[in-house]
Amino acid sequence: MSNIRHALSVKRSDDFAKWYQEVISAADMAEESGVRGCMVIKPWGYGIWERIQRLLDERIKETGHDNCYFPIFIPLSNFEREAEHVDGFAKEMAVVTHHRLIADGKGKLVPDPQAKLEEPLVVRPTSETIIGDAMARWIQSWRDLPLLTNQWANVVRWEMRTRMFLRTSEFLWQEGHTAHADQAEAKEHTLRMLEVYRACAEEDLAMPVIAGEKPENERFPGAVETWSIEAMMQDGKALQAGTSHYLGTNFSEAANIRFQDKDGAQQLCHTTSWGVSTRMIGGVIMTHGDDDGLRVPPTIAPYQVVILPMLRDKPEDEALLSYCEDIKTALKTETAFGEKLRVMLDKKPGKAAAKRWDYVRKGAPVIIEVGGRDMDNGVVSLLRRDALWAENGKPDFHSPGKDAVAQSIPDLLAEIQNALFEQARARRDANIRTDITEMNQLSEHFDSKHVHPGWVEVQWCKPTGDELEKVVEQLKELKLTVRNVPIGAAPVDSACIFTGKPAVERIYVAKAY
Amino acid sequence: MSNIRHALSVKRSDDFAKWYQEVISAADMAEESGVRGCMVIKPWGYGIWERIQRLLDERIKETGHDNCYFPIFIPLSNFEREAEHVDGFAKEMAVVTHHRLIADGKGKLVPDPQAKLEEPLVVRPTSETIIGDAMARWIQSWRDLPLLTNQWANVVRWEMRTRMFLRTSEFLWQEGHTAHADQAEAKEHTLRMLEVYRACAEEDLAMPVIAGEKPENERFPGAVETWSIEAMMQDGKALQAGTSHYLGTNFSEAANIRFQDKDGAQQLCHTTSWGVSTRMIGGVIMTHGDDDGLRVPPTIAPYQVVILPMLRDKPEDEALLSYCEDIKTALKTETAFGEKLRVMLDKKPGKAAAKRWDYVRKGAPVIIEVGGRDMDNGVVSLLRRDALWAENGKPDFHSPGKDAVAQSIPDLLAEIQNALFEQARARRDANIRTDITEMNQLSEHFDSKHVHPGWVEVQWCKPTGDELEKVVEQLKELKLTVRNVPIGAAPVDSACIFTGKPAVERIYVAKAY
Repeated sequence: MSNIRHALSVKRSDDFAKWYQEVISAADMAEESGVRGCMVIKPWGYGIWERIQRLLDERIKETGHDNCYFPIFIPLSNFEREAEHVDGFAKEMAVVTHHRLIADGKGKLVPDPQAKLEEPLVVRPTSETIIGDAMARWIQSWRDLPLLTNQWANVVRWEMRTRMFLRTSEFLWQEGHTAHADQAEAKEHTLRMLEVYRACAEEDLAMPVIAGEKPENERFPGAVETWSIEAMMQDGKALQAGTSHYLGTNFSEAANIRFQDKDGAQQLCHTTSWGVSTRMIGGVIMTHGDDDGLRVPPTIAPYQVVILPMLRDKPEDEALLSYCEDIKTALKTETAFGEKLRVMLDKKPGKAAAKRWDYVRKGAPVIIEVGGRDMDNGVVSLLRRDALWAENGKPDFHSPGKDAVAQSIPDLLAEIQNALFEQARARRDANIRTDITEMNQLSEHFDSKHVHPGWVEVQWCKPTGDELEKVVEQLKELKLTVRNVPIGAAPVDSACIFTGKPAVERIYVAKAY
Repeated sequence: MSNIRHALSVKRSDDFAKWYQEVISAADMAEESGVRGCMVIKPWGYGIWERIQRLLDERIKETGHDNCYFPIFIPLSNFEREAEHVDGFAKEMAVVTHHRLIADGKGKLVPDPQAKLEEPLVVRPTSETIIGDAMARWIQSWRDLPLLTNQWANVVRWEMRTRMFLRTSEFLWQEGHTAHADQAEAKEHTLRMLEVYRACAEEDLAMPVIAGEKPENERFPGAVETWSIEAMMQDGKALQAGTSHYLGTNFSEAANIRFQDKDGAQQLCHTTSWGVSTRMIGGVIMTHGDDDGLRVPPTIAPYQVVILPMLRDKPEDEALLSYCEDIKTALKTETAFGEKLRVMLDKKPGKAAAKRWDYVRKGAPVIIEVGGRDMDNGVVSLLRRDALWAENGKPDFHSPGKDAVAQSIPDLLAEIQNALFEQARARRDANIRTDITEMNQLSEHFDSKHVHPGWVEVQWCKPTGDELEKVVEQLKELKLTVRNVPIGAAPVDSACIFTGKPAVERIYVAKAY
């Protein structure tokens, strides 16, 4: 199939980072805004986010959470309360110091010195402290627990090096915050939400993930435990796609979140927080994209089926459009994944072939082209985005009959969804080595000659403190990090690869975004 | 019915402003956050916003708009470009001047002087200028037009005097921004979106509105025409519930939004913008609330039916819960307004009567209570929130059979939706005077003795410039403003009430929020 002329100019195997940028621009998903570190999310990118939001929001509500909205501004003093938390975030926040602009007399505007805030406000990098204040007001007794809240919001973390969707100064996310009567319940909830994220990633985004606990050094600032889902990108790097934190009583102490227990005693709440963000979209691109652009899993595609009439600006166009409208109407009555099909009939002027490649690059799951000959034969020309090329190196068009095509789409979409997941899972599994037990093997494997070394599962003694620091340093030299301690791993059976002590658990190490 | 013991402590007729605050707190919709001018929107308030969002978003998409997301930060220099625009907003913006905090060595955090931004960033008060930059990049030719975008976002306008939902420093809204090839199309689109707002207000929120053009002095900063929908609150004041602006080429000139027309010539685009915000929720409260709390129209109620089992912490509870689950299951198969019913079975501990009054105050459209006696008789006890009290001053419970109740709910909800709208419309129409032709009549009518003077429709000569300023001053003395020039008003037939010149059009004058 070397004669294929792919729709992108850069191949994954040639320059993955450049390929990533090209997918985003070729699929018209987002662009630099001109404002430092902030992107503009364009309709196709935002449409995918809306789908992720809708599906994840349902899962979050099903687990008993209510959505709320908290202020974007957090008083600076809130950050002074929880020492570890502020250490983690202090370096990268947008600070509002004035509430008015005035003309400087030279045709420019400047912050009005008369309108300096007494206490600066921070644009939320995350909302633990401000939601903690609300929880302290809302919780009096054990009857108020558990308190299960969630918020969809924008947050800002000043980033020096940004990459669209993966690391931007402003990003969109959901942040869940819950309060519980005791440790057991809070820990259980932390894992429940991790499982919600796993299900969302795998079932909605068709992105296989490994759920597990982060090592001590990778914890969220102020957390007692941090859990993550980790996905393998096509360059073998790991992407942390969601995190769930058990915060113990750290934030409760700082914000005074207490309740009266059944015996009348005052107790501190145990809290959790968990979030996923627009970073997920970067994960979708690097999991499913190919050398022709993005491939969007049908569950989260803004449009699952795109109909392209081959208009020629002639009177025959009318019959062709009516033929296409029939197909659209039939498709609109079908459901897939429990929802009505999302169908687009593109009537805009422009050549059908050019449009086809636009939607290939965008990764619409099914493209239906209709030309005069199709109409005469009572068929359509159908392309599956996940299986674009025929053996002969040409687009692999199928020709189902016009009257039968609509009812075949739901099964086809399910097949595509499944195929994308299975491809990604097979690729990931093929790129995890489990046979490495010595540090020199590890360095050799991650040697620069390996373009895509994938992940390595090793066993370690679960070091803490200084001993962990040493391990982190060793890994850093290889540009590696511990991704997580996977849930449900096989028992240990060898020595710690770092210290030679008896191993305690298995971990994944990898390069990461 | 003077023996009714209402669920709120303040009556609308006693102190409308205090009543408004009590509804918000009694319905648990929102609260002060402790951050100046920002509120916390709680689940019931946010749930209503989610419903408004969902329904309005569908309407916006149906009219061809795609959702995007633009940066929250706008470089200060963007505001220097469009002079009128900056005049309108310059006084009330949150200004980010630093991107890092550091410890001051005394246990406090301060903005890091080393991290001062070269150019301050403004937290968006509205996004015309930043979206204008994007439009200038996106539009090259007439083929790119019309460009129809929308964004759901938070915005900040520093407010000195705030009132929850009605005027807060941070609020949530949608802002649509479009670019067109010529004036006619842009003006037509401005009115199309005004009509979308009218339909949303009246059909989704059951809130009757008058659509019309704002006078010159009330235009959005930088707009050529500003149109609004105005609703009458129960104290007779007007609430501007949504605006749609034709911006001419003002923002296109400032941001250089040009296109090549079919003849190859460069032309400036004509742009529009339009928005509605969480202020709508304030309108819902003041349109539908009564002395027992909020009444939420079924279309936007987070839950349309609330089932309250009268649990007694005894073994019989199990049978009662199973009876209630049956009702819930039956309700879940029903649809109203083209969507599945939203039903809540409240199993939390607590007395049923206390819960009933909680949901009365929240304004759930239908409350179904089930006690042991109901179960024995195979019925339920049903309350319509919009018709709460019987002639005898007691809650007006109905007793439909358990097996028939579910299928009666869709019609009942439609009836409630309609009743709320008709009540509001009748109230509004009864409170508009059209017989006032002289200024002394006007001042007399709006004299302090009139508690709820409502609106007055008068005729005027459509003054501009200084002449308009004089009129505005005259009205200001009576604490009045011109609300709008209603679309489709009767022809003029008298003199201008302000100048005595021949009248040109009819306008509404009123006190306003």
